[in-house]
Amino acid sequence: MANETGDAQPAGTSAPPAKLPKGMVLGKDGKPCRACNEKATFSAWASQAKTLKAPLKAGAVPAAAAAAAGAVAMAPPPTDCPPDKDELGRSTWTLLHSIAATYPTAPTSNEQSEIKAFMGLFAKLYPCWFCADDFQRYMKKETVRAASRDEFGNWLCNAHNEVNKKLGKPIFDCAKWEERWRTGWKDGRCD
Amino acid sequence: MANETGDAQPAGTSAPPAKLPKGMVLGKDGKPCRACNEKATFSAWASQAKTLKAPLKAGAVPAAAAAAAGAVAMAPPPTDCPPDKDELGRSTWTLLHSIAATYPTAPTSNEQSEIKAFMGLFAKLYPCWFCADDFQRYMKKETVRAASRDEFGNWLCNAHNEVNKKLGKPIFDCAKWEERWRTGWKDGRCD
Repeated sequence: MANETGDAQPAGTSAPPAKLPKGMVLGKDGKPCRACNEKATFSAWASQAKTLKAPLKAGAVPAAAAAAAGAVAMAPPPTDCPPDKDELGRSTWTLLHSIAATYPTAPTSNEQSEIKAFMGLFAKLYPCWFCADDFQRYMKKETVRAASRDEFGNWLCNAHNEVNKKLGKPIFDCAKWEERWRTGWKDGRCD
Repeated sequence: MANETGDAQPAGTSAPPAKLPKGMVLGKDGKPCRACNEKATFSAWASQAKTLKAPLKAGAVPAAAAAAAGAVAMAPPPTDCPPDKDELGRSTWTLLHSIAATYPTAPTSNEQSEIKAFMGLFAKLYPCWFCADDFQRYMKKETVRAASRDEFGNWLCNAHNEVNKKLGKPIFDCAKWEERWRTGWKDGRCD
């Protein structure tokens, strides 16, 4: 089963397989996976797959070509679609850092066990499988530290920075994780 | 310790306590809690607390009054602030439904135990404490069903609808949970 490149076919069709866009990641089921790709990558594949499934009538303009020509450029993107990799990532960090923000300053040993178990299960269940694999590897190297809110918040911030590094995104100053995720910035712009 | 109404004081000040806006929910530490309130409720409290902390000089215009007068109405809201209750809710449902979307169609008994353990820990750790309490109560009444992707997706959809009902939001047709969260809509608008 190909995972990162190869050909794939939309479920339930007998159309010829669409060529996968460069860099497209397949799900563990061998099919293109929304949660593992950026929206643009998934859309490029989906519109090609549709074209192959329903060959054009003479004079018809394929949806992708119409979009490229600006015909539907003004339509706002729908807000009720499955998230792509980036939206899923943003949503997930929002939840995880907020959990850190309400984690006790002096947790019991039971509370420490619970947050560690939660993070372990989270790393297994995360919908983007290769992101989950990366996170599991990180957690083996840097085991969760959760003896206090500050310790867990910093551990999580460093884990997030590891992902930022991989994606070429800016590194966040972890000394400021509580301002970003708990108190709001000292300049008051979050109030 | 008051939880839903009462007076509260910003940390580290000796100002008189700010009157809490109607309906404001305090955190378990007795302080106003971003993850438990809408942004507008928190902001109303924060700007009042600031005014009490730094009494106005003659002629000065308080930030809240300036904002109300439209002086800063055009400034886009900052994107790097702790989420309020609604943003946290949206982010969390995005992660949970996406987990359902990649949950196996025929999970092993170990996979079923893991998703149940994850949901149990999630319900304890959710940053909005009264939302977490509600969710825990729901899970006691309607224990997690996860014998298949469809079963778990439907269980989660019903749990989400329970919250929608409480908030007066529209009820979602759970027969369509996979279109919303896994495949995208059949009309192709998500492709």
